[in-house]
Amino acid sequence: MMTAPFTNAEYEARVAKVKARMEAAGIEVLLCSSPGNMNWLTGYDGWSFYVHQFVAVALDAEEPMWLGRGIDIAGARHTVWLSGDNIRGYGDEHLQARHNHPVKFVAGVFAERGWEARRIGVEMDDFYFTGLALDELRKALPNARILDADFLVDWARIVKSPAEVAYMREASRIVEAATRAALDTIAPGVRQCDAVAKVYEAQVRGTPEFGGDYPAAAASMPAGAAAAAPHLTWTDTPYEANQAVNMELGGCRHRYHSAMCRTVQLGKPPQKLVDLAALVVEGFHVALDAIRPGAECQAVEAAWRQVIARAGLEKPTRMGYSIGLNYPPDWGERTASMRPGDTTVLVPGMTFHVIPAMWFDDWGFILSETVLVTETGSESLNDFPRQLFVKD
Amino acid sequence: MMTAPFTNAEYEARVAKVKARMEAAGIEVLLCSSPGNMNWLTGYDGWSFYVHQFVAVALDAEEPMWLGRGIDIAGARHTVWLSGDNIRGYGDEHLQARHNHPVKFVAGVFAERGWEARRIGVEMDDFYFTGLALDELRKALPNARILDADFLVDWARIVKSPAEVAYMREASRIVEAATRAALDTIAPGVRQCDAVAKVYEAQVRGTPEFGGDYPAAAASMPAGAAAAAPHLTWTDTPYEANQAVNMELGGCRHRYHSAMCRTVQLGKPPQKLVDLAALVVEGFHVALDAIRPGAECQAVEAAWRQVIARAGLEKPTRMGYSIGLNYPPDWGERTASMRPGDTTVLVPGMTFHVIPAMWFDDWGFILSETVLVTETGSESLNDFPRQLFVKD
Repeated sequence: MMTAPFTNAEYEARVAKVKARMEAAGIEVLLCSSPGNMNWLTGYDGWSFYVHQFVAVALDAEEPMWLGRGIDIAGARHTVWLSGDNIRGYGDEHLQARHNHPVKFVAGVFAERGWEARRIGVEMDDFYFTGLALDELRKALPNARILDADFLVDWARIVKSPAEVAYMREASRIVEAATRAALDTIAPGVRQCDAVAKVYEAQVRGTPEFGGDYPAAAASMPAGAAAAAPHLTWTDTPYEANQAVNMELGGCRHRYHSAMCRTVQLGKPPQKLVDLAALVVEGFHVALDAIRPGAECQAVEAAWRQVIARAGLEKPTRMGYSIGLNYPPDWGERTASMRPGDTTVLVPGMTFHVIPAMWFDDWGFILSETVLVTETGSESLNDFPRQLFVKD
Repeated sequence: MMTAPFTNAEYEARVAKVKARMEAAGIEVLLCSSPGNMNWLTGYDGWSFYVHQFVAVALDAEEPMWLGRGIDIAGARHTVWLSGDNIRGYGDEHLQARHNHPVKFVAGVFAERGWEARRIGVEMDDFYFTGLALDELRKALPNARILDADFLVDWARIVKSPAEVAYMREASRIVEAATRAALDTIAPGVRQCDAVAKVYEAQVRGTPEFGGDYPAAAASMPAGAAAAAPHLTWTDTPYEANQAVNMELGGCRHRYHSAMCRTVQLGKPPQKLVDLAALVVEGFHVALDAIRPGAECQAVEAAWRQVIARAGLEKPTRMGYSIGLNYPPDWGERTASMRPGDTTVLVPGMTFHVIPAMWFDDWGFILSETVLVTETGSESLNDFPRQLFVKD
């Protein structure tokens, strides 16, 4: 086994937390498919989530159980804290086999454990729990009650432990290095892919003290008119003078993320961009002030909204979301969001990607950081100038 | 709009191919959720698949329709060939909102088009089509017939066009550069993350003629005992003398992949590794010879199996699978696999990741390449020495 990122005691405390939520929800067996939730409960870490795999937590079993493809048992043995009989693998006869779905294997193991007629929770809207998995599980366990347990684990892990926050601080150093690499490289005539290559190198290299892991989302660094489109990645065309580049980057350490956005202008920025940057930076600081224990998520968004409303602007999308441990396609945790109607109460140890980014038809300005809720207020985990960058 | 990787005529031919398969399957409207299938049909390319998004193909509509999050309309406008009224976005009130699922927005658009009582195909086992999406779609379209259309598009795209093969050749140059970067960097005392950083840099930089895209799977480069575990990624511990490193890397160009595996030994290799390498290289060549139009997938596996059986070995997992256009978590296409029982007949233009990798308890040897079925036989798209690499 490789050096585990957390103590067994921390994993056991997580399992206890999840079992308490299961009892409250009337769930006897929880079947997790989210790779992030699987990792948080067991430590499992491999790029094998392109096949069906699960972690089961049962109220009547001390340890969780890892269920995956047989070929990945070796990886499980290297990464999980579970005992050997809680690592179970299916043969390739279940692999991408429509009439022999991997959940049939899961149902067999459940029957063996006497769980086939239990109240079973599944992660209904998790991207690794497919429609077919749901239908086949219902068929394979006709006496079970299949219940919606979406986000049960995600809510159990929204408040980070000191050890988790420590990894997010390390991830913050990594995303700062990646952003610095981008700023150093981007220039007119340089191909976009060559700048992004330096970003990826920095993300994986990390620092001399600790290495980086792959972020759960690709680097997003569109330029020019495309920069008004969030979530575009990059091309191999060269940057041009008078373009702006919007960078949304992640740093990752033991699957924990820090995300950060900045905009860099090549050449003299138009006045409207200078003005928008000043407004967004002000709004970001107002949001940071509004983040404190006891406040609701929607109050943070409302504070930011007031700042941009003064300039006659509005932002139709959320301006923050819970961030932490995850796998592709998302470093967000899909629990709390800073948006109207979200009444989640902030608690010390929560971590948010606060992203008051503004996009218009063919331009925009983006600035974001990863922020910790502290005992008394908030602390950005990132240490990077909050400004529009300009390269002449 | 950015320069499209294919002509409109090629996209139109793809839609026609899919419509013919829909008619044969009795499907009137196809709702794709696979990011790879969405891209193949429309050109859409953005890292936005962490939220629900779809492409609908209707027999009674000329063009497909893109349906995603409103914020991603800008990215769609930059990348798809569709006319503006076939780009439809939902508001953030549907974002990660349990009781206002994005498929309700889809159902509303379908009703507007008169598709609410049609025979609607969905990609049942696609990782971006969740159990909740299925249940909510059934509720939102009570008069429709929801049918399993898994892999309908995937099978339509298993034979690549010359333009697609050209991108896979470019991706092959990229994965060769990435593997060369790994071989140049890996050495005792070098941290794993520092070698992988050079791999990522090479993958994204590409060549002076064309840039790289992010592969659909992370670099897998476990070392030492962990190298016996496929799908582990890397750590920040230094490589040690007498370790072997198993590298499974991808190159990507316009979302088309070339994948390649090699093993490098630090120091003198044990005789059993030398012997296994010779056997696997021989088996790989036998498999290449067995790949030709008219042969079945299972015959290729059988030819390979005979080689290793001579040494008393067997490989319990598939030894090849269709590869091409895709997004995380998988560069494979989940259609044809080289394994017993797969009777898919090989056709010129098909492309396979041929991976006769062998893993044992705490060691292994891996070698793989991306192979094109030609008019007369097979051609590996990779040009890289087929051997065990040794660094002293």
